[in-house]
Amino acid sequence: MEIPGCLMTIFGATGDLTHRKLIPALYQLQCQGLLPDDFSILAVGRRALTTRSYLEQIRQSAVKYSADFSSGVWNALENRIEYIRVDILNKDSFIRLAEIINKGRAESRYACNDMFYLAVAPEYFAPIVNGLDSIRLIDHTPADTSDDSKKWQRFVIEKPFGKDLASASELNRSLTSVIPEESIYRIDHYLAKEMIQNITMLRSRNTIFEPLWNHNYIDNIQISILERDGVGSRGGYYDNSGALRDMVQNHLLQIVAVLAMDLTPDNKAEQIRDEKVRLLSSLKIDFKSDPAPVVLGQYRSYRSEQHVTADSATETFAALKVSVDNERWQGVPFYLVTGKKLSAKAALVSVEFKKPAGSQQDDIPANLLQIGIQPQEGIHLKLNMKKPTVTDEMDVAEMEYCQSCYYDFNSPDSYEKLLLDVMLGDSTRFTRWDELRLSWKLTDDIAEYCNRNNILDLYDDDSAGPGSAVNMIKAYGRRWWHLDEGSNKPMPFFCRTDNRRRQ
Amino acid sequence: MEIPGCLMTIFGATGDLTHRKLIPALYQLQCQGLLPDDFSILAVGRRALTTRSYLEQIRQSAVKYSADFSSGVWNALENRIEYIRVDILNKDSFIRLAEIINKGRAESRYACNDMFYLAVAPEYFAPIVNGLDSIRLIDHTPADTSDDSKKWQRFVIEKPFGKDLASASELNRSLTSVIPEESIYRIDHYLAKEMIQNITMLRSRNTIFEPLWNHNYIDNIQISILERDGVGSRGGYYDNSGALRDMVQNHLLQIVAVLAMDLTPDNKAEQIRDEKVRLLSSLKIDFKSDPAPVVLGQYRSYRSEQHVTADSATETFAALKVSVDNERWQGVPFYLVTGKKLSAKAALVSVEFKKPAGSQQDDIPANLLQIGIQPQEGIHLKLNMKKPTVTDEMDVAEMEYCQSCYYDFNSPDSYEKLLLDVMLGDSTRFTRWDELRLSWKLTDDIAEYCNRNNILDLYDDDSAGPGSAVNMIKAYGRRWWHLDEGSNKPMPFFCRTDNRRRQ
Repeated sequence: MEIPGCLMTIFGATGDLTHRKLIPALYQLQCQGLLPDDFSILAVGRRALTTRSYLEQIRQSAVKYSADFSSGVWNALENRIEYIRVDILNKDSFIRLAEIINKGRAESRYACNDMFYLAVAPEYFAPIVNGLDSIRLIDHTPADTSDDSKKWQRFVIEKPFGKDLASASELNRSLTSVIPEESIYRIDHYLAKEMIQNITMLRSRNTIFEPLWNHNYIDNIQISILERDGVGSRGGYYDNSGALRDMVQNHLLQIVAVLAMDLTPDNKAEQIRDEKVRLLSSLKIDFKSDPAPVVLGQYRSYRSEQHVTADSATETFAALKVSVDNERWQGVPFYLVTGKKLSAKAALVSVEFKKPAGSQQDDIPANLLQIGIQPQEGIHLKLNMKKPTVTDEMDVAEMEYCQSCYYDFNSPDSYEKLLLDVMLGDSTRFTRWDELRLSWKLTDDIAEYCNRNNILDLYDDDSAGPGSAVNMIKAYGRRWWHLDEGSNKPMPFFCRTDNRRRQ
Repeated sequence: MEIPGCLMTIFGATGDLTHRKLIPALYQLQCQGLLPDDFSILAVGRRALTTRSYLEQIRQSAVKYSADFSSGVWNALENRIEYIRVDILNKDSFIRLAEIINKGRAESRYACNDMFYLAVAPEYFAPIVNGLDSIRLIDHTPADTSDDSKKWQRFVIEKPFGKDLASASELNRSLTSVIPEESIYRIDHYLAKEMIQNITMLRSRNTIFEPLWNHNYIDNIQISILERDGVGSRGGYYDNSGALRDMVQNHLLQIVAVLAMDLTPDNKAEQIRDEKVRLLSSLKIDFKSDPAPVVLGQYRSYRSEQHVTADSATETFAALKVSVDNERWQGVPFYLVTGKKLSAKAALVSVEFKKPAGSQQDDIPANLLQIGIQPQEGIHLKLNMKKPTVTDEMDVAEMEYCQSCYYDFNSPDSYEKLLLDVMLGDSTRFTRWDELRLSWKLTDDIAEYCNRNNILDLYDDDSAGPGSAVNMIKAYGRRWWHLDEGSNKPMPFFCRTDNRRRQ
């Protein structure tokens, strides 16, 4: 794997994302020797800081967010970083930026490839791109992805990408009037999570799953992302967003796509994204004949959170039933659930199989494949086996592969992987505009339906969410696999091996 | 589960099998409260013993072979047992036996159902049955299995049942001229092993295996039964038998049948045995065009074993390739291997799947499902997953369900289960004559082929068996899953969880 060098220009270099995610990820890449010699970082921020004082600040973040901080590694990274103050809304600032970049290139200190990382609020995306264009830093010759040796420019965009279809389209128009779609890397960090990537691996690199991966054998699929935290300091942003826009539109629908799409013959990014688009375009919610396809909820203390309006109707919990209108998934519901301030933190996928064919099998528990995404990474498979007694009683046996147990080091953070992807020009784990358009369309439809029907139930802090979500799935004759069946309390992904080790 | 009472008459009550298997199994059944009040044991032996001295002897065996001996349980069992000396070849002895049984029934001490357990050498089967007939202890009214309340007589026959098709047919003729086939319970204790029973459970009670259980997804299936022990004190018997007759004809072919047969809509014994017969009748070995479908071996020190002839050509190791000539298993080889004096003790089934469809997948390791039968019981599944690093490297992940780890008590011994089966009239785990006939026919063909071609390779004691067995499977482009690929040393079924616990 040869990693081409580049100049990484981070807009928002003093912000939270840079501190919490980018710097620790860069530190890890440095640590693993994955940063090429001609990789440099231009940290761009609004605050007046020297490079020296900036480095001191981010060093603290690197220490805080790295399990294994080493000064030697840090010094090697530090040498690549320069801080520069830029007022995004001021043209002169950009002129100074151009001077620095051009000078660095003239002196061969900077590689000629550009990664522009927009770690800023979405309203600054267009001003930054326009600012870069105004100082002729944007290359308007058509990108030729087949030629690896060609100089490239890539723009990494953080979520949220719009707040509905209209604003996302507007934002996209303003960006693509200056830079081509192929250069835009829209981050959905869930796509880089180890176990989400493993969904595709499990499906494509094993013989045993794909034959089962359809309506003949699968009864329903559930995607559950539960958070313990409330909105914290993000109340201002969140109150204008909510669970549908903040979680469902991107992470949950992307996971549906990865789970349900057709596999591609090889792993080319555009083929995979074509398949995801095909899948997203076949997603349906039955607003007409289904009495309750969506439940929204709000935790009781939400309106008292900082920066949240006192009469807010923003949902902090969403549960919905989606179907996929194609042959493979005929009649297989996808149940999505996500919420804040719940009594457990867990992200997991549960694939519930149909009961085995044959007579008198109704009392047999269904086979269940669970994929733990976080905090525990692993796979579980619930099987029916003979109880080891002289009778022919059956028992549920749990096969497991506990990745968190066997790999003592932490799985790489999504951002390490994603930064490397950008350098390598692999856009598989980034969202293309047509994917985004379809997911915003669906999200708009859901939001409109909920608005019209006044759907919002309160739920207790640190609970399992609103009771209506349990009733919803019961009405469909199923159960949530992230909830304990008896108590209806959240039941995080459970590793026997891990629990044993921790005893 | 209502267990009907009976009088269990054990012929060979002072023998090894009674001491090592029957008494400990009866003790366990007593312990679990599974012996009905009207269950009595008439221990019949050639030796002159009082009931008192006999009980003292078997008590020692119960202590020796039970993990959890309790005097209270033993006393309860002891009260059911009476010893009587019978010379099987002497008619007067049988008259005395009849008197005792008839007296016990007249006094209502014995239930009217009969379990005759023939724990004796096969040459005594016919004399015993004829002896019982001569004293009118055999009921010649046709058995009506549909009427549970009807008095029954069941005859449990230990292996070996013949030494080839001709002798087995002769033995069968002599038995069935007196007792009906439905009353004969021919033991193959492998069929009662927990994980062998689980093969059927796994296939029929889960949704996820049966769709994969055919030539579209399975590349080959291996059954490996490795023993560390040599022939020990059984040289006299073994030298007239060998691995083909002692292991392949019964245990290995029965496991093939259980793995490969079509499932029945419900679990009726006769339906299951019909399917096994169908399967056994489609088993083929290609003696004509296959250059080496069978390897036989003998361990170097075998001819020096007690009671073994100095120029013995008896095989103590057999490896063979069998195919199943039906649609489901078209082109899927079944590799069977068994041997004594090897460097590991293990019995396991390995199901190797085909490589996943798609381009450039040749370097992907195959999925492998392994079923550990003994000494470790469990299931393993080798999957391909993403290595948790920033690259897209793949790694083999092992999912496992380690039954031996999670159940601290020992799995029930086969004999407990089998005795209960006989009492309940469930013949599923016993071999019907037509099954036996087909497996003897195949075994005769193999033996004849090996004789004609002088197939017998020596192998070192405590090794992996003859090198020719490794070459054989290599010639088919495969590997033995019970051997480590690099060293070709036996690699027993491995439980990560268990190993962790033992550390």
